[in-house]
Amino acid sequence: MTPKNIAIAGATGAVGAEFMSVLEKRNFPIKNIKFLASARSVGKKITFKGEEFPVEEMTKDSFKGIDVALFSAGASRSREFAPYVVDAGCVMVDNSSAFRMDPDVPLVVPEINPEDVKWNKGIIANPNCSTIIMLMAVYPIYRLSRVKRIIVSTYQAASGAGAKAMEELKNQASDFLAGQSVKKEIFPHQIAFNLFSHNTKIDDEGYNEEEVKMIKESNKILHDAELKITATCIRVPILRAHSESISLETERKLGLDEIRQAISAFSGCKVIDDRAGNYFPMPLDASGQDDCLVGRIRYDNALDNGIALFVCGDQLLKGAALNAVQVAELL
Amino acid sequence: MTPKNIAIAGATGAVGAEFMSVLEKRNFPIKNIKFLASARSVGKKITFKGEEFPVEEMTKDSFKGIDVALFSAGASRSREFAPYVVDAGCVMVDNSSAFRMDPDVPLVVPEINPEDVKWNKGIIANPNCSTIIMLMAVYPIYRLSRVKRIIVSTYQAASGAGAKAMEELKNQASDFLAGQSVKKEIFPHQIAFNLFSHNTKIDDEGYNEEEVKMIKESNKILHDAELKITATCIRVPILRAHSESISLETERKLGLDEIRQAISAFSGCKVIDDRAGNYFPMPLDASGQDDCLVGRIRYDNALDNGIALFVCGDQLLKGAALNAVQVAELL
Repeated sequence: MTPKNIAIAGATGAVGAEFMSVLEKRNFPIKNIKFLASARSVGKKITFKGEEFPVEEMTKDSFKGIDVALFSAGASRSREFAPYVVDAGCVMVDNSSAFRMDPDVPLVVPEINPEDVKWNKGIIANPNCSTIIMLMAVYPIYRLSRVKRIIVSTYQAASGAGAKAMEELKNQASDFLAGQSVKKEIFPHQIAFNLFSHNTKIDDEGYNEEEVKMIKESNKILHDAELKITATCIRVPILRAHSESISLETERKLGLDEIRQAISAFSGCKVIDDRAGNYFPMPLDASGQDDCLVGRIRYDNALDNGIALFVCGDQLLKGAALNAVQVAELL
Repeated sequence: MTPKNIAIAGATGAVGAEFMSVLEKRNFPIKNIKFLASARSVGKKITFKGEEFPVEEMTKDSFKGIDVALFSAGASRSREFAPYVVDAGCVMVDNSSAFRMDPDVPLVVPEINPEDVKWNKGIIANPNCSTIIMLMAVYPIYRLSRVKRIIVSTYQAASGAGAKAMEELKNQASDFLAGQSVKKEIFPHQIAFNLFSHNTKIDDEGYNEEEVKMIKESNKILHDAELKITATCIRVPILRAHSESISLETERKLGLDEIRQAISAFSGCKVIDDRAGNYFPMPLDASGQDDCLVGRIRYDNALDNGIALFVCGDQLLKGAALNAVQVAELL
């Protein structure tokens, strides 16, 4: 791959920081790199590969000469700057929800649908973190036999709401332990020693936006609109890895060994399924790891051809920055 | 009800403390009460209704003249002392798993199968906390139309592992926030800012004991061995209320209003289902409450005649002490 000119948009956020470490760790071939954020972050410095870079204000002229822009600055910023990115002949890999369901924008998990990158028109969307982590566990099974239905309940970390949400969890826990009242700034409810339904708008069917994303994005990524999915998205007092309890029904009856082998062989997944030692995927183990951890693999006897499993994945890595950099590598 | 002679076995534990407060709050008619524990707790004092009582060592002679013994001292103590309780003509209401699946022992949730109390032979079992909380949400629906299958994922509080586990969660959180390594004494894995699969023995099918309890106990309580259930039991860093994400399939297609009304009208349940305000059941709200909180009531489109919902219930109250005292009230 020829070295690229890269821009990081949203460089000062939780995902922004992970973009840097992922690019560095994967030795992504970079010619030049620039770090963009809003005007209020100008003056901050970013250290990348031992060198110090200034944070620049993102403007419509920021993308001239840039090959790939990795965006994680929120959906409204992505919508605002997309035309300038595309006009500059740069490809935007967007971590926000802005373009995910746009029929002109591929939505890509590189291990699942890398070929969709080819038809991009200047924007490629990175799926929602919960969607990616679920599909990483489900797709190796899907390849063995089409999956007809999925019922998923999530245990989502604070990191999905950004760096400040992670701080809020720690501050609330500290205040709670000291017997003081907790401060709520990012989340509407106390998150320390509590959990709550994902605080995004509920639609007419009773599903919140996070759940709708998991359903619709999975249908798009798998090119399978017939796959039925029910999601229940819950925020839990965990810092940075999401967990998901998944039940699914396959068309063909599969063997558990066949499934374990398929998941083990799937790039980006690791099977952690030690029944004798009672050791299964935990968010603490998944934090900072590129691989999604999959375990509790067993028959789900409530469904016909049912399989149950449990997956943990780092929300900031495979759920966001790592997936986006992998997409950039496909370009 | 004529005042009864009561014994509390396991008086110094987390559930033991709740027995006292529930008896007091419900103004349970008591003639005499005694507080039993192991020899090492002798010397401790228990305050009940403003009066101080000594903790007595539980022996085979402890149950003479006692009408009802509320047990929460672990399964092995229940098995050891059951013969003496029964021989003394006392009824044992046992919170442990010792006798739950014994065909000679009724397993009772008073709102669901109170009539089963009648055929007791001196022992009545209190179901597992997760089972009770699930069935409190499911049974009002079951009465409208038989439920064919349930898929449940739990978010279980530390209290289910006792008072020391609750302390461990707080101590670990404190050490973690201070940047220190955490001490693991009760749980095999870090519980603060982490979650893990319920740490009970895994059977040949891949299900842990907690999950098997939820399945088999539900079949017994509902007298419906054909009801198919899959459970995934997860311990989360919450102090004392369990949450459960439930998907179920009914025989008849039900309306959501019909379901909401049935749950609202069901004694022991409260519907918390504010879609516009994004306010749903949370363990913090359920803690210290007698009622189980039920919300996120919606169609589950992955199942035929599918319903999804979310329930939170206080593990120490409806999940344990409250249910046991309600059983005693039926006697």
